[in-house]
Amino acid sequence: MPETDYDALFRSALDRLHGERRYRVFADIERVAGRFPAARWRRPDGETRDITVWCSNDYLGMGQHPEVVAALTETAQRCGVGAGGTRNIAGNTSPLVDLEHELADLHGKEAALVFTSGYVSNQTGIATIAKLIPDCLILSDAFNHNSMIEGVRQSGCDKKVFRHNDLAHLEELLREARDRPKLIVFESVYSMDGDVAPIGAICDLADRYGAMTYLDEVHAVGLYGPRGAGIAERDGVMHRVDVIEGTLAKGFGVVGGYITGTAALCDAVRSHAPGFIFTTALPPAIAAAATASIRYLKRSAAEREAHQRQAARTKVVLAEAGLPVLETDTHIVPVMVGDAELCKAAADRLLERHGIYIQPINYPTVPRGTERLRITPSPFHGEAHIARLADALVEVWDALDLPRAGTVFVEAAE
Amino acid sequence: MPETDYDALFRSALDRLHGERRYRVFADIERVAGRFPAARWRRPDGETRDITVWCSNDYLGMGQHPEVVAALTETAQRCGVGAGGTRNIAGNTSPLVDLEHELADLHGKEAALVFTSGYVSNQTGIATIAKLIPDCLILSDAFNHNSMIEGVRQSGCDKKVFRHNDLAHLEELLREARDRPKLIVFESVYSMDGDVAPIGAICDLADRYGAMTYLDEVHAVGLYGPRGAGIAERDGVMHRVDVIEGTLAKGFGVVGGYITGTAALCDAVRSHAPGFIFTTALPPAIAAAATASIRYLKRSAAEREAHQRQAARTKVVLAEAGLPVLETDTHIVPVMVGDAELCKAAADRLLERHGIYIQPINYPTVPRGTERLRITPSPFHGEAHIARLADALVEVWDALDLPRAGTVFVEAAE
Repeated sequence: MPETDYDALFRSALDRLHGERRYRVFADIERVAGRFPAARWRRPDGETRDITVWCSNDYLGMGQHPEVVAALTETAQRCGVGAGGTRNIAGNTSPLVDLEHELADLHGKEAALVFTSGYVSNQTGIATIAKLIPDCLILSDAFNHNSMIEGVRQSGCDKKVFRHNDLAHLEELLREARDRPKLIVFESVYSMDGDVAPIGAICDLADRYGAMTYLDEVHAVGLYGPRGAGIAERDGVMHRVDVIEGTLAKGFGVVGGYITGTAALCDAVRSHAPGFIFTTALPPAIAAAATASIRYLKRSAAEREAHQRQAARTKVVLAEAGLPVLETDTHIVPVMVGDAELCKAAADRLLERHGIYIQPINYPTVPRGTERLRITPSPFHGEAHIARLADALVEVWDALDLPRAGTVFVEAAE
Repeated sequence: MPETDYDALFRSALDRLHGERRYRVFADIERVAGRFPAARWRRPDGETRDITVWCSNDYLGMGQHPEVVAALTETAQRCGVGAGGTRNIAGNTSPLVDLEHELADLHGKEAALVFTSGYVSNQTGIATIAKLIPDCLILSDAFNHNSMIEGVRQSGCDKKVFRHNDLAHLEELLREARDRPKLIVFESVYSMDGDVAPIGAICDLADRYGAMTYLDEVHAVGLYGPRGAGIAERDGVMHRVDVIEGTLAKGFGVVGGYITGTAALCDAVRSHAPGFIFTTALPPAIAAAATASIRYLKRSAAEREAHQRQAARTKVVLAEAGLPVLETDTHIVPVMVGDAELCKAAADRLLERHGIYIQPINYPTVPRGTERLRITPSPFHGEAHIARLADALVEVWDALDLPRAGTVFVEAAE
């Protein structure tokens, strides 16, 4: 029997990534509660250095908020750590039930259902919803996140991809589908370009053509709207969206994901989704921390205002420094590089020389030719942080001769 | 345009479940650290009652262990709650890196990779590994967990299912596959029947026919072996298995999942698995709690010994009471009912009348006709607990006229 050298297959897969300059190295970061965005970087040689994080999705720094940390530690001391089982078998803890009520209230829906992650909520949520709709056609935005693409794929349903945020194309596909059941899946804030979907106009189309809507607000919950429910709340169209999906891991600073919708929809997903049924529930302490964060951000707009202010300020300062900042409507500040190797070199130099941590964003997260540094200012990034960031970027841009403001970045042909 | 009433579709899906007596109600449980298996049950009417949990997968009660709770709370106070990003983007925290070293050491492998859950580790782990092996044929045990089945499906590879723990059938399929690359995926402890795979004999076959092995030790890690690495460690064959997958949510009492294997394998999965790449990392405090639990159970065998002793004792007492206990080689004690409605009625009566919480296990988790109460004794279930359990079960068995020891339970034809 000839032997397959399995390990050689894995090594050659890694060689291909190295060859394409796509091999990723994870920076080893120790967060420091109360000092965010300051953190410690543990270098591969073991040496530890103080750094400033400029790429966290803990957008508001809620992960270090005293009420959130206290909810976690108090609940762990009262209830222990793990949930001990699936939601069905011994893992349906009271803090998790309370969290679902909090989320339903946040989005003005009848019910909510919590998953172990936002990824899982999209993957098993979309797949399950679409499977429960006979002959469902899924209409999916071209820029949707991997978790949504996997959910669409796992559903086994027919799907058509509409050009990103293109209402005319979406309408064309809706019209072609005639009276077939249709599910439109899209995001509110697209995290790499920082642009925003026309949610109200998509709901208009959904009404006109009898489609159901599924909206991912992962990069918006906690951050937009009077109570932090997201872009749909800000735009006054939250009640028009059938399913709103969100995460507890970004604006809310904890971990986990969820969907909200009608009681029947949430109950049907609860009862049919394998990625929900057959997995251990989130720890009660995590659920309590998330509830504390949501409640806090429902009543306090100060973090949201400071977040928008510091993001806008960062854009202005970097643009004035001649850096190629991609214009966005949101808190996300992409600074374009347009080359995988240079992008990584820029990030390495920022970290090594300047103690500034911004992970390079390369293919497949963004198209080749549009590689970038994705900067996420928070309320805790003050004027001095922004000034130091601009100086550091200018030094790196000069040293590596990177493209300046005004450069046009286009997707490389595959 | 005719309107689809989407919500009616979800309601009718729920009606079907009710009609088949498959609709599941989750008991709302509040765990009480330091008092496990005592807990509080929040009834639908809001009243709270003290209960004893007899179905938790926190098998050793490590979720309430002071070292585990302390690791969680201290790390949260030092690092905050959420990781703040994916492993690649700002979420690769030091406690998570340390956890992976601990896991690699536990299983005697070069490397480990942590996922947000055991479910995700199987789903995206198996799919990614199999995709990296050109022309891979997957050989999958018929009783594998849903997460493994989803991983196999998501790989898109050819698969053949071998009869549960049937070495002759597995060998037949291996022989038929000739020199094609082959991945055998199986579990060590099957959680519903509590039986154990012949790991060494499967490794013999893998060697003879040039197959790679992937072993799920989810219901064994922490519980078996001199350092709690599982059945493969106990049987002295851990070094022969290529990939060992486990959970942090059961024996270790926390949450999360992992794989261990060669450095190249873990690095290749790290670099290619969508369910790993595009999801927020586990919180550093969760990682630290898991590390504390693993370290503790590496050095202390007392919990494992007490666990086996109390499980054996429970089986004896229930069998002596004339209850139809399924014989198992492990810590899992199934008491058979053989009917979905009666199984739920028995569980309801146990909870309402006796304050004993054991979730009914019905189809699709087990085949129809083999519905059961699945009892999981822990080191904290003492003689008095066991005596009360036996009395309560006898009362319920009498009241509902349920089948006694000696009854043969067979899978209903579909």
